[in-house]
Amino acid sequence: MERINVQDVIDALSMWGGGASGGSDRLLAGDSSAQVRGIAVAFMATLGAIREAVESDANLLIVHEGAFYSHDNDPDAELAEGAVYAEKRRRIADSGLHVYRCHDAVHRSRPDIIEEGLIRELGWERCEIRHLPAASLVELPERMTGEQVVRYVKERLGLDRVRAAGNLAADCRRVGLLVGYRGGRKTAVPLLDRHGADIVLYGEGPEWETPEYVRDAAELGGSAAIVALGHLESEQPGMKLLGERLQERFPDVPVRFCPVESALRSL
Amino acid sequence: MERINVQDVIDALSMWGGGASGGSDRLLAGDSSAQVRGIAVAFMATLGAIREAVESDANLLIVHEGAFYSHDNDPDAELAEGAVYAEKRRRIADSGLHVYRCHDAVHRSRPDIIEEGLIRELGWERCEIRHLPAASLVELPERMTGEQVVRYVKERLGLDRVRAAGNLAADCRRVGLLVGYRGGRKTAVPLLDRHGADIVLYGEGPEWETPEYVRDAAELGGSAAIVALGHLESEQPGMKLLGERLQERFPDVPVRFCPVESALRSL
Repeated sequence: MERINVQDVIDALSMWGGGASGGSDRLLAGDSSAQVRGIAVAFMATLGAIREAVESDANLLIVHEGAFYSHDNDPDAELAEGAVYAEKRRRIADSGLHVYRCHDAVHRSRPDIIEEGLIRELGWERCEIRHLPAASLVELPERMTGEQVVRYVKERLGLDRVRAAGNLAADCRRVGLLVGYRGGRKTAVPLLDRHGADIVLYGEGPEWETPEYVRDAAELGGSAAIVALGHLESEQPGMKLLGERLQERFPDVPVRFCPVESALRSL
Repeated sequence: MERINVQDVIDALSMWGGGASGGSDRLLAGDSSAQVRGIAVAFMATLGAIREAVESDANLLIVHEGAFYSHDNDPDAELAEGAVYAEKRRRIADSGLHVYRCHDAVHRSRPDIIEEGLIRELGWERCEIRHLPAASLVELPERMTGEQVVRYVKERLGLDRVRAAGNLAADCRRVGLLVGYRGGRKTAVPLLDRHGADIVLYGEGPEWETPEYVRDAAELGGSAAIVALGHLESEQPGMKLLGERLQERFPDVPVRFCPVESALRSL
């Protein structure tokens, strides 16, 4: 049985992203020369995900977002003095986990593993798909209204609620997909007005941007609509897929996916 | 009857903001020397708000956010070529309205008129209130659980749904308030961990910031919680208040508040 170090896993992840690591991707805790006993993969290093990783006997936790409530990996100096930050640092240290943040590499992979995971979870992997640098376009096999797309997406992703805007009564054939915080006007509007998408599903984006655009477009008689899935909801399926890819790449090391519930509840 | 020009209204708004205009505040359409026949006030220059302003016989429309789906007033050159942008420019021009964006001045007023409007709409204007530079803290007259706060806020603001995170079972006495896009960790976390807020109500903020902080805080046994009201939902009451202030300042000019529905629906 091959000895796998944390660095071997980091190298495999970086390679999928086309080469050198860096950017947001970094070892947040632990030591790259340590031997890997088991891998846990989660959207984010919540206290629950840390506990589940430890209980599953993994010693390497791979996460997509930062551990300290920010895209930046280093907690803001001012905020870091607070009790929640201090206790979180302590729990990460006590867990003994090596924690690696894998954000940029999965988005840089071609196709983007995070988008690929979402497309698979939606059951659209056999549809005609066009990959753009930060988005995908999917041709539905049969037309669905926007309302039907909303129901379908909620069922496939197991979501209680989504938020939607624009004209949901019109037929949709081409669906634009944007994961994470890519729902702003600069990424979403071109899918609608240049790439022929009838509806765009995105993770998160400023509320006064794309939703307002599709509101006006719908009022002008257009068919534009958006569905805001939520940041975690749009990216978690991709981390699940990443876990499977890691299991294939390192068959001797157990890999466990730890699903994280959304922090936000619709009430 | 005094003749009021667009510039007179701009000057009054700027004065409330402590002096010179500038920043995001700008005449988006029209002419500052024109005489004002009537004023319409809206959160945003949606096509519906433009129509309502024209129908009410106003010729000056005052809005809080940009007309082109962005905090920046100038539409991105690339996006501006699209049909929706072109038609919106045409509708604004055809309306004959002078459109003034009043964003920074109302936030710079002390207290911030947008926060003041939200506090009033929540019926908390007689509570003990502390104003911080970009937030307010309100002492509730009686303790309420987080769940009760959610129900109360929805009823007072007429909201169908809000999104909430953290520990909603704990008693709340001190409530932090953040309007618009101020829900990020840098503004929200200090209210909870330094200023003693039990719950923070905010407009909008990155999903992986404050909601994740309160998730961890709740798991550690704390009472922290947040309610994301929505960007428009948190700021529109302030624009309503602004309309009333303008009516007091210019009693001879009819001022009409045009409520805008949220573009996003929870489904």
